[in-house]
Amino acid sequence: MKKKITKVPKFKDFKTTRATSSALEKILYKQIPILDHGFIRVIDYMGTDQSIVQAARVSYGEGTKKLREDRGLIRYLLSHWHTTPFEMCEIKFHIKLPIFVARQWIRHRTANVNEYSARYSILDKEFYIPSAKNLAAQSQINNQGRGDALTDDEASNVIQILKNDAEQTYANYETLLNENSSGGVLDEGKSGIARELARMNLTLNTYTQWYWKIDLNNLLHFLALRADDHAQYEIRVYADVMLDLVKKWVPLTYEAFEDYRMGGTELSAKEIKLMRKLLKGEKVSFEEEGLSKREWSELQRKFDLN
Amino acid sequence: MKKKITKVPKFKDFKTTRATSSALEKILYKQIPILDHGFIRVIDYMGTDQSIVQAARVSYGEGTKKLREDRGLIRYLLSHWHTTPFEMCEIKFHIKLPIFVARQWIRHRTANVNEYSARYSILDKEFYIPSAKNLAAQSQINNQGRGDALTDDEASNVIQILKNDAEQTYANYETLLNENSSGGVLDEGKSGIARELARMNLTLNTYTQWYWKIDLNNLLHFLALRADDHAQYEIRVYADVMLDLVKKWVPLTYEAFEDYRMGGTELSAKEIKLMRKLLKGEKVSFEEEGLSKREWSELQRKFDLN
Amino acid sequence: MKKKITKVPKFKDFKTTRATSSALEKILYKQIPILDHGFIRVIDYMGTDQSIVQAARVSYGEGTKKLREDRGLIRYLLSHWHTTPFEMCEIKFHIKLPIFVARQWIRHRTANVNEYSARYSILDKEFYIPSAKNLAAQSQINNQGRGDALTDDEASNVIQILKNDAEQTYANYETLLNENSSGGVLDEGKSGIARELARMNLTLNTYTQWYWKIDLNNLLHFLALRADDHAQYEIRVYADVMLDLVKKWVPLTYEAFEDYRMGGTELSAKEIKLMRKLLKGEKVSFEEEGLSKREWSELQRKFDLN
Amino acid sequence: MKKKITKVPKFKDFKTTRATSSALEKILYKQIPILDHGFIRVIDYMGTDQSIVQAARVSYGEGTKKLREDRGLIRYLLSHWHTTPFEMCEIKFHIKLPIFVARQWIRHRTANVNEYSARYSILDKEFYIPSAKNLAAQSQINNQGRGDALTDDEASNVIQILKNDAEQTYANYETLLNENSSGGVLDEGKSGIARELARMNLTLNTYTQWYWKIDLNNLLHFLALRADDHAQYEIRVYADVMLDLVKKWVPLTYEAFEDYRMGGTELSAKEIKLMRKLLKGEKVSFEEEGLSKREWSELQRKFDLN
Repeated sequence: MKKKITKVPKFKDFKTTRATSSALEKILYKQIPILDHGFIRVIDYMGTDQSIVQAARVSYGEGTKKLREDRGLIRYLLSHWHTTPFEMCEIKFHIKLPIFVARQWIRHRTANVNEYSARYSILDKEFYIPSAKNLAAQSQINNQGRGDALTDDEASNVIQILKNDAEQTYANYETLLNENSSGGVLDEGKSGIARELARMNLTLNTYTQWYWKIDLNNLLHFLALRADDHAQYEIRVYADVMLDLVKKWVPLTYEAFEDYRMGGTELSAKEIKLMRKLLKGEKVSFEEEGLSKREWSELQRKFDLN
Repeated sequence: MKKKITKVPKFKDFKTTRATSSALEKILYKQIPILDHGFIRVIDYMGTDQSIVQAARVSYGEGTKKLREDRGLIRYLLSHWHTTPFEMCEIKFHIKLPIFVARQWIRHRTANVNEYSARYSILDKEFYIPSAKNLAAQSQINNQGRGDALTDDEASNVIQILKNDAEQTYANYETLLNENSSGGVLDEGKSGIARELARMNLTLNTYTQWYWKIDLNNLLHFLALRADDHAQYEIRVYADVMLDLVKKWVPLTYEAFEDYRMGGTELSAKEIKLMRKLLKGEKVSFEEEGLSKREWSELQRKFDLN
Repeated sequence: MKKKITKVPKFKDFKTTRATSSALEKILYKQIPILDHGFIRVIDYMGTDQSIVQAARVSYGEGTKKLREDRGLIRYLLSHWHTTPFEMCEIKFHIKLPIFVARQWIRHRTANVNEYSARYSILDKEFYIPSAKNLAAQSQINNQGRGDALTDDEASNVIQILKNDAEQTYANYETLLNENSSGGVLDEGKSGIARELARMNLTLNTYTQWYWKIDLNNLLHFLALRADDHAQYEIRVYADVMLDLVKKWVPLTYEAFEDYRMGGTELSAKEIKLMRKLLKGEKVSFEEEGLSKREWSELQRKFDLN
Repeated sequence: MKKKITKVPKFKDFKTTRATSSALEKILYKQIPILDHGFIRVIDYMGTDQSIVQAARVSYGEGTKKLREDRGLIRYLLSHWHTTPFEMCEIKFHIKLPIFVARQWIRHRTANVNEYSARYSILDKEFYIPSAKNLAAQSQINNQGRGDALTDDEASNVIQILKNDAEQTYANYETLLNENSSGGVLDEGKSGIARELARMNLTLNTYTQWYWKIDLNNLLHFLALRADDHAQYEIRVYADVMLDLVKKWVPLTYEAFEDYRMGGTELSAKEIKLMRKLLKGEKVSFEEEGLSKREWSELQRKFDLN
């Protein structure tokens, strides 16, 4: 049973008077490979930078005289958290990703999802096996992060374990189904168990796939969290590809997002007070200002303080 | 200050490989008049019937052998409340409507909205005045409905009151702003109060407008409630126009929706039990079956029982 | 590293003037076992049947004269899909469940979730192994269902495979972490890989746990889908327990829900037309009425037609 | 017809083992007056600071060794936008507010609402009339703000217009209904029009009321926007009262919210770069750094730059 679902036929050329992004049209339906077997491709989209401007102008009417220029208006909206105009754009992706990544991803509830169902169908024999350079020890300072790289020996040992277990559990998945991934029956004398049961034997690095549709405002929120340094590498690589796609799709919004969100920072009331003293040339003690050691280190790093 | 916002420029012709509805393209951006000053027009859309099928097939993969035909699959999905594939289509409207209708409308929270802001801008001098035939007395049996029609005299009296009060409060709105709706200052020696304050003097039949974007699943839910007989006339006329637009946009979905939702009904466990008896030719007493008088009347009406 | 998180300390007795369900107070914090290692327990709740009535009366004010009785009002609200008063009640559960069940569950997006994080912490050595009587062959008529039971031999073979693979992959999870589930280091000379990586080697029947908070309206929607015959057994057992808890918590709502939703049905326009003919004693052909064979079978079953 | 709905009977004293806030219990059900006829009162709540900590510990398990202290954990969660634990608390308010304020308020979609229905019932004769000190001219620099105060004469003139128009349109509302607000029929020979129609004659400063239920995370988001200087005065006074209630309810969360959100700020990538130069004692030009004049003024104000 060869799976056809990743080969959705490209639609023909149509005429439209809808807002259209010529840069995004060029890569529509094309798979962008991620990790060893994953991908993202854009299936559809609604709106462009101009749609954001248009929606904002409905809200502000003639009141926007001073914000007439599109780039300035988009920067103003994004920096002041006027988020509703960005909700007027929508994008739909087809994504193939390991199940443990899908489990993190789905926690973002403000999207529409149609996932491949392992109750209905048999999952492909494809698992994520990290490359040696992406394996790392548990971080000693960050409970949810990675620390030092592994030695070559350690890495190849890890990879061998992951491969063996994934292949064995998948082989037993076929045995339980009494069917292989091409749809062939293994033993004519047996019936196999229901697909909804057999799937529980698969490991969390098995690939799944889904259609995922989201508005631009919620997508930017997702990307701010998942393209961040603190995100797990295996989801960050997807976020990085989507950032590139956003850049093609809505370049003015992308520019503002990079400046105000990805490259920006937040300061607490305590940190503002400390910064004021520093700017006046006063000596400061982070403890006296009520900052934790961690907050003080972050502040030093952000502002090149020594 | 002549308002320009209802004249959003039509986009030019573009080429796209996105799913495209030729029937919807024909009426894109065109205002469909509703009530005395209102309208709906489609600004943008994403997806077609085929996008629903496509998303369902991602979920069900090769398991959908028996549901290969698009119409059958859409009917199956809709009748079994498999709602997520319908979320893969999205539509954006520009709508002009009286404020008291907008207040009902906004209770549907699963949409994106950009409304004309009366903090930023001055509202137009346009009020909804019902036509005589749409005026009616309070229903004596339905606390939230209309009963008998008014006499011609009563109707013209009502209309006169509504007109006078709307015009007087609008004239005072201009006085409070010290500005008229064309932007002209009334009295150079005065300053006027802030727009965010002056607006409170307007009546609830003043028109507002907004961009409203929603996915097809949530739109169908909205229409099931608002195109229903129990909905207030002034919102139902908008729902009726949107039903027509849905028919153009996704004809297979529309057909299934008409059959299973708009034309369908629900029966309680008690009603099923009663119906079984009727079908076997037994005599029934609605009280003994635990139905209220109202439930029994509805059942009689639905199934032509005497 | 013995896990403490399932032993959240019981709060002491407090005085409150909040709406309180004495039946629910009795089982607060108590684990109700489900499957082999799972459970549900109620952690907190807001509101009772009276809170629903109270909210409805804010909406309808003095207009509810005829609906004065609580039971009647709740039945009216539920049968007419006036859903917002039911949103005024909220409940919070602590749930332990296999990951493949959690993946289905989380598709209901209208809830708040805090899940045990396998990036931060090590998952317990607990897997769901179905009992022999819950194993079944793939259904030949329903792509997502179970068919005939297995023979004893087949069943014990299946169970052996599931056990072996879960234990082996878990043992290798510990090897990858270089740590066992009690926190002991396996090999002092090694570092182990990050938890966020090692978890990918676990099978989908590994148990996870979460806090899950939802309003009553959305909970009823969840239960209508997941306590249904078509739901997978392994999620239905959780839904069944929650139905019991709803019965304790809001007995009037539960009764209406059983009558109108769980025990009720929907009919399409075509089915209503066919039923009218049947009730008049006319002969009908389901094909001529436009019903599919499947729809006709379901109708026969529901109404005892032969 | 005297309205009773603002006198919801206080529940009796119950025993509970739920998380309980003794500070909030003391003011449960008590109306806190706002504006001339408005109020807020807490009807119910779920959870305390400890519930947030408890939910976070489910997520992080034993990984939270270093964050054991509650206050530190809550500060960490809030400053790092780990928002889901705050969703585990819920609060329900009964609020009376002018319709034009309700229209702004309802744009926050992540809450549950039951509003008094003017289709079912007659609205009370209560309008918001601003006090003289809260009247102001349109701001010349901020399109959605207030500028200079009015002279005493101007103010009393404005107040007279608002009063007269509200009273006249309300009197005509009664005429249209042929009923006064106490339920008395005005003219026995007439029928009056339906309530759903008559209401359109009321002005936007008429009071409405609703039950409004929201989780703590979304409430904080609402308060960050609506307790801000840029929010309209008439909604800000409600937000200020709710801030006080949050302080009573979840004092640790309130403290972190004040420090990181209300008192904090955001800096863009460009602003960080400029600040680094300032901290090194370099001369800067805001134009060369790519800041707008408005951004530069804000930065100067925030950090006491001259």
